[in-house]
Parts: sequence; structure tokens; C-alpha cells
Amino acid sequence: MPKTAISPTREENYPEWYQQVVKAADLAETSDVRGCMVIKPWGYAIWENIQKKLDGMFKATGHENAYFPLFIPMSFMEKEAEHVEGFAKECAVVTHHRLEPDPEGGLRPAASAKLDEPLIVRPTSETIIGATFARWVESYRDLPILINQWANVVRWELRTRMFLRTTEFLWQEGHTVHASAEEAQAETRLILDLYAEFAEQSMAMPVIKGEKTAGERFPGAVSTYSIEAMMQDRKALQAGTTHFLGQNFAKAQQIKFQDRSGSEAYAWTTSWGVSTRLVGGLIMTHSDDDGLVLPPVLAPAHVVLLPIYRNDDERAVVLPYCETLKQELLSQRFDGEPLRVRIDNRDIRGGEKKWQWVKRGVPIRLEVGPRDVEGGGVFVGRRDVAGKGKPQPRGEFVETVSRTLTEIQQSLFDKALKAREEVTVEIDTWEEFERYFTPRNAKRPELHGGFALCHFADGPEMEAKLKELKVTARCLPLDREPQQGKCIFTGQPSTQRGLFAKAY
Amino acid sequence: MPKTAISPTREENYPEWYQQVVKAADLAETSDVRGCMVIKPWGYAIWENIQKKLDGMFKATGHENAYFPLFIPMSFMEKEAEHVEGFAKECAVVTHHRLEPDPEGGLRPAASAKLDEPLIVRPTSETIIGATFARWVESYRDLPILINQWANVVRWELRTRMFLRTTEFLWQEGHTVHASAEEAQAETRLILDLYAEFAEQSMAMPVIKGEKTAGERFPGAVSTYSIEAMMQDRKALQAGTTHFLGQNFAKAQQIKFQDRSGSEAYAWTTSWGVSTRLVGGLIMTHSDDDGLVLPPVLAPAHVVLLPIYRNDDERAVVLPYCETLKQELLSQRFDGEPLRVRIDNRDIRGGEKKWQWVKRGVPIRLEVGPRDVEGGGVFVGRRDVAGKGKPQPRGEFVETVSRTLTEIQQSLFDKALKAREEVTVEIDTWEEFERYFTPRNAKRPELHGGFALCHFADGPEMEAKLKELKVTARCLPLDREPQQGKCIFTGQPSTQRGLFAKAY
Repeated sequence: MPKTAISPTREENYPEWYQQVVKAADLAETSDVRGCMVIKPWGYAIWENIQKKLDGMFKATGHENAYFPLFIPMSFMEKEAEHVEGFAKECAVVTHHRLEPDPEGGLRPAASAKLDEPLIVRPTSETIIGATFARWVESYRDLPILINQWANVVRWELRTRMFLRTTEFLWQEGHTVHASAEEAQAETRLILDLYAEFAEQSMAMPVIKGEKTAGERFPGAVSTYSIEAMMQDRKALQAGTTHFLGQNFAKAQQIKFQDRSGSEAYAWTTSWGVSTRLVGGLIMTHSDDDGLVLPPVLAPAHVVLLPIYRNDDERAVVLPYCETLKQELLSQRFDGEPLRVRIDNRDIRGGEKKWQWVKRGVPIRLEVGPRDVEGGGVFVGRRDVAGKGKPQPRGEFVETVSRTLTEIQQSLFDKALKAREEVTVEIDTWEEFERYFTPRNAKRPELHGGFALCHFADGPEMEAKLKELKVTARCLPLDREPQQGKCIFTGQPSTQRGLFAKAY
Repeated sequence: MPKTAISPTREENYPEWYQQVVKAADLAETSDVRGCMVIKPWGYAIWENIQKKLDGMFKATGHENAYFPLFIPMSFMEKEAEHVEGFAKECAVVTHHRLEPDPEGGLRPAASAKLDEPLIVRPTSETIIGATFARWVESYRDLPILINQWANVVRWELRTRMFLRTTEFLWQEGHTVHASAEEAQAETRLILDLYAEFAEQSMAMPVIKGEKTAGERFPGAVSTYSIEAMMQDRKALQAGTTHFLGQNFAKAQQIKFQDRSGSEAYAWTTSWGVSTRLVGGLIMTHSDDDGLVLPPVLAPAHVVLLPIYRNDDERAVVLPYCETLKQELLSQRFDGEPLRVRIDNRDIRGGEKKWQWVKRGVPIRLEVGPRDVEGGGVFVGRRDVAGKGKPQPRGEFVETVSRTLTEIQQSLFDKALKAREEVTVEIDTWEEFERYFTPRNAKRPELHGGFALCHFADGPEMEAKLKELKVTARCLPLDREPQQGKCIFTGQPSTQRGLFAKAY
């Protein structure tokens, strides 16, 4: 049996495999604060690439960035009933604005510095941004308002997992105001398409766009849409959501405007967001038992050069060769930008060095030793292709590197799509559904389940049955034709199949 | 007397002028949270440009970005005695992790969700990042560690002013670890030079680099360096600081490493930062009584096109002319990037529209009416030049626009440098010093003072005298030759002049 760089393997223990990939790829680590992580440089560089791509897409569609306060007055949380229900249970509450020495020589919150009104660390910013928008909007001429914010938010999660669910996380939250329901609806669909395009083209992660069922809606929204991806352990990951908020928040926060006819109306708002959770999705979509696999579009380095030499003479030959090669590569472009290239010249064993870059998921590794220099070649290892790699003439490598990266990007997408299709089934009876989502070995559950497309009738009866199996309704896919059928939970008539899965 | 767009003028009431410029340029507004501001799109776009420039400079000098928790356990604050002294008095304290309904139908922090140990919202991250570094560093081979973080921080300020001093603000904080004192010292000087280069070349804001006196040092630092700028009201603004922390934090947090000889040693650390305060400095350096004046390098738009027409026929001629002109301009480059160009085609009065862009500080305004189209010209208004502007052939304008922007950038720097030089004096007696910093009219103090270069001996006697006048020692400038003299506060011998000023 071949040894893998990551232990345990995905088959052996998927959750532990995930933690080990995060560690081996140097992406993040737990911090001294419960549920908060430290995002290390390699992990943060992936997030920066995600930000840059998305930010460009937001701006190209007319959105502008702004920044709103970290804190939300407690009373703001009381205004939208469903919203408070959804977020009050898991928020960090600031009650004092000063520490003072305590009798034991330590510190304590100063009683004299207790806030009149506690402040909540934002779990999401609908309330504070809505209150601001109420000041910005007077007439239909001020609309639409298309704002995005890159920020940190805090939700007091009990069970956390790096990138996927952390107490503090980084995200972008879009908040828009419109003069009509139609326009606001169109905005939620525009951004949903944009998220799907980003996921598929930049992350190489296939997604299904759809509308959430009532039970899975954002607290306070009229409708919520999401993109849903399938991970290698056959669990779904909600990778981004957009919310049509109707006039709910506008009424709670008095966002009113004078319409064309001169009468006053409540505005229509939306919100939408993706977070550092995407990094978790990226890891779980592509990585293998040797560690992280990065889609070239988001990789902090496309190519890493690994000079190999045993003495100073060899060093004097190999290093300059690598330096000029790096310069040649930097003049190549991929995805509209100069290639990202590194030379790893650290003084550690060659094998260890190579495996570090395998585990970190760099798309292309180039090993360069004295013989490669002599023959004018490079030894090319592709992260998406198993095996040691193969020699290639230097000039040919440089000329084709951009095409190779495009190929890798495509191959990762194709592989992920195939994996998803293999675990996506149409199911027409409750018995089959139950069997699909039940592991054969309850003591040590093997990988099981996947996406199930089933006729359904949204409601408490369905919710109860799903809860029993720990399965959730992911969404009502948008891109499918209507179809007559019968709800597998209740027997009621249904006109479309919903998407079901166990999920993160 | 000519009417100005901003009222009051700088002469009439500088602090109020500042607030009015922020408002008229649509940069920011106060929020519903005490001391926190909303940074509006135009203000945030300036901050994004600042970030992009600095981030590139940090990365070019080998620094990597990462992200650390927003929260700091209270016990971490107790570890470095001076540091707690400096920050415990002004921090937001999180004590609960849940809200619950109160009997009156509102919310309250849930008693059952009180944290065992309160968390502090980071006022700066030396302690939490230091604790992480202690885990990262084992051997000299792991050093240096060169990390930067873009983040929000909170300091509970009593008196706040937009951008200059707010409870929450955005910043970058660099944190580095080195194997020797010399290396760590060199890092603080490298970054100080980098900050100065950024301030002078990108912000067009001349600065003086220097070392802080003991009383002005960062809590816990061995030495603090700063760049100091002169505002138009003759007050100094500390625009960036770098700190050589010696082994103070390494000892408090056990950042130890095995050195080349195999013995264990405490590491040497630094930290450094600039914040959204820079936007305040930018405003106060260049703006005039007509509003904001933006240095082209940081302007969200370099050129704004203002189409002028009275009817649909004129519109059909003017708009396409503007569109093709915009395309031509977009193919021009300034400061290594494509020109940033906007067309303002909003349906509001031409005069109002023009003045909005004057107040927002756009470097170049182009008014385009039917007669300009006919003559193949444009009407060019430069924000740095008084008057209505002048006509120019279209082709000539496009060809020279990049050069013009370079000229504007330089002219702003020159003007600011001249203004600073006009209020910088060498003072050799306490009496003269006192006179320099005392307004003639105490009831309605006119603009007075500036930079004073004086011989001094650092210590309590000097501090007491300075406090009386509300003057502060800004720094001991680094780029000046030693000079024999006598301290104007104590009469003691001195070998160099320090820089003194009233300050923000």
C-alpha cells in the first residue's frame, strides 16, 4: 500500500484528514481565543486572491466598498423580530469600556465604566447599515444604493472547525437598496450568478444555484438563495448566499423614499455574502491524501522552483539557471496577470522541501539539478497528476506554462464535477432516501450519501423527517425544468425536485 | 470678498472647516455608535488606494500578510506591565456571549453566558501575535518572521474626530521577530523609510522622520520612531510609527529560539503601523476653502468628465464624444496603472455637479459642451489651480494628461513643503518658545505656532513645561547633523535639536 503524505487518508477519517491538510499546508492554526483561528500567510494569500477576484466582479457590476462600525447597539437587534431570534443567541457582548486593577494584582472590567447600552460585535450588519441607509435615501433619485463591505464578523459558535465554522471569520457583505421589489430580486439573482461564476471559474468548484426552503432562510429575509457545492465526503457545503429582504428591514429601520409619483414608500433591500469558509470549500473539493491541491487561478504561487545541488560548484551553476528561468516565467501571463513564481532556496533536504510544496498544493513544481542545467531542461511535477513528474526542455516549458495552468484549472473542475455527478441521484421514495443517507456501519460510519434530488412539499412534516436523518434541504435548484411528482415525505403533489444532502 | 464652497474657511474656524470638508467631499459620517464613523465610498476608495500602495511596498520588502484574532484574553494584557498601563484604560471589554429576552420585552446579556475570562477587543495586537510567534519560533532558521496584518482596532477614545481619532479605526500592524537587536533595529528604520517614502511620494505630504522622546514612546517599546507632518493649522500630525520592542515582549511572551551556537535566547521584536488617520492627514495637508484636494496618486478618479447639454439634440452629440474620450483616456497610464476616469451624467444642474467634484477633490475636471465637440476640444479645470479653467484641444489633452497629473502631484508636495518651511523655526530661548506657541488672542485663538527646532534635555522638567503650553516633543529628527547647544527648558548641554509642536 502506498504511503501518503497526509495521515489519516480521506477514507480512513475525513474530518481528521481535513485538519491535517490545513496543518500540513500551513494554512491556519487554532489561536489562544476559543473558536478563533490564526490565518497563516499561505492561507491568507489564498483569501487575498479570492478577495481580489470578487472585488473586481463587484466593482464591475456597479458596487462600491464602504465601511461600517464593528459594534451594533443592543437596541438595534430588537427591531427585526426574526433577525434577533437568529443572532441574539450567539453574539459577543461588550459591556464595559475600561479595565482596572483587581485586588489580586490582575485586571477586571471597571464597574465605573459599564456601558449604558451594551454593544454587540456584528454577527452581520443589516441593522447598522440599514440605519445608515435610512439617512442616505430620500428620493428615488438616490436609488439604487449598491454597497459592499469587507469585514470581520463574530458568531459565538459552540463547535468550530477551521475555515468552515469559526467564532470570528472574514467575509464580504453586500447591502443594497432599491425602488422596487423586481429590482431587488434581480440584484439577488445577479449576485448569485456572480458567486456561481466565481466558484466555478476561479475555485474550479462546481455549484448548484437554488432557493432555500423556509426553514433554511436568513432570519428576516423573504427569500434566500445559495450556491451549494459537494465535498469529497459527500456532504454539501453552502458556499454563498444572497437574500431578498423585501421591505422587512426597510420597515424596521425606516428606509423610506419619495417615489416618482411623489408619494412616500418603503424601499426594498438585499444582502449577500461569502466568507473565509470558501477556503474550507476549496480545500475539501480538490485536496487529496498528499495534501492541498490549489486551482491555479487562486494559488499564491503558480510555479515553485526547487534548485538541487550537493556542493558549491553545483550551486554556482544551478542557482543562476533558476534565477534567469524565474525571470522568463515572470514575463509570462496567466488569467490576465503575471505568473506568480517562487524559488525555494532554503537549506533543507530536497525530499522534505519537495513534499512541503506538494502538501501546500502548488500547481507546478520544477526541480532543477546540474544535469537539467546541462541538458537545458527542467523536471516538471504537476500537482494534479500523480507520479514523480517528467523532464521537459526549458524553452518548451516556459512557452506552454500558461496553457498548462489553464489545463490544470480545467482538470480540477472536471474532476470535481465528475465526483459530484457520481454522488448525485434522483430518489422517489422515502425508503430509498432513508437508505441513501444511512451508513451501513453505524459504529464507524463510512462515507455515504451525496446529493439527492427529490420531489418535496416544504413544511414541518418534511423538516421533522429530515432532522431525524440529519439531512437538510439544500435548495430548490433554479436551472431545472418543472416536473410533476409526489413529495417523498408527505405524498403531496410537487412540481419540482429539491436538492437534499447532509451538510456542513 | 469671494465666496468659498466650504464655510467656515480655514482662517475662520479650522476644526469646523475640517468637519465640513469631510462632509462636503462625502468621505465619512458619524454613526449610531459612539465614536465610530461610517466610511463612505469616496473616503473608503482613498483608503483602498493607500492600502494597495503600502501593501505592495511591504510585500516587496519580504513581508507577508496574515490574520490574528479580534479578541485578546484579558490575562494577556497583564503580561507586559507598561503595555497594560497604556491600553487597559481605553478598551472594549466583551463579558458575555449571548443575549436573552428581558422582562420588559427587550434584550439583556444572559447571566448564564458570562465568560470565565473577559475578552478585550484588540487595541493593538502585540500580545496575541506574540503568543502565536512563540509557537512559530524554534531555531534561528525560523527567523526573521516578517508579518503584517490589515485589521480594525478599538481604543475607547473620549474625544473623537473623524479619521483623526475614532473609537474603531482601520490600520495595518506589522509584527516582526529577529535573531539580533541590530536586525530588529534595522527593520524599524527600513519601515520608517518606507512610511516616509509613501507619505511624500503617494500622499504628497512632506514628513520629518525621527525618534520619539521617552514620554511619547509606545507602551512597552525600547524606542519608537515616527514620521511627523505639518497641517495647515500649524499643528503636527503623527502619521506613522515604528517600534523597536527589544526583548520586552519576547520575555513577556516567551518568544525564544536556539541560536547558531545552540543556546537558547530571547528574540528581538518590532511592531509598526499606519491607520485611517492618514486620510485625515491627507485632507488637512492639501485641502482648501473649496473642499478636498486629492493627490493624483491616491485619487479614486483622476479625471471626471462633465457632459453639458440643454436638449436631446445636444445630448446626442455630447455624450458619444465623452464616451470615446473616456476610452482614449483609459488607455493612458499614470503611476504605473491605467487612468481612473468617470463620466458624471446625472440629471442635476451643471453648476452643482461641477462644485460637487471640486469639493470631492478630483485632480482634473473636463467640461464638455456642444461647442467643445464642434471645435474638437475640452474645457480643463485643474483642482490645484484657482480659476475656472481653460480650453484645450482634445488630442493635446489626452497626450499630456499623464504628465499633467505628475505635475499636480509635484505641485501639491511643493506647496505643502513650502507651507511647512514657513512655519518651521529654530528657537533658542524659553521666552521665545513660549511666545511662539501662545496665541495673541486667548479668547479666540488665531492660527499660531508650527514646528520649533530646539535644543533640549529629555526629562520631567521639560515635560512639565511643555504640558503647560500644550506643546509636545514630536521627535528627535534623524537626518540632522549633531550640534552643540543648551536645553531651552533646563539649561543643560544638548547635542541636537528636537522637533516641537502642538499636535493632533
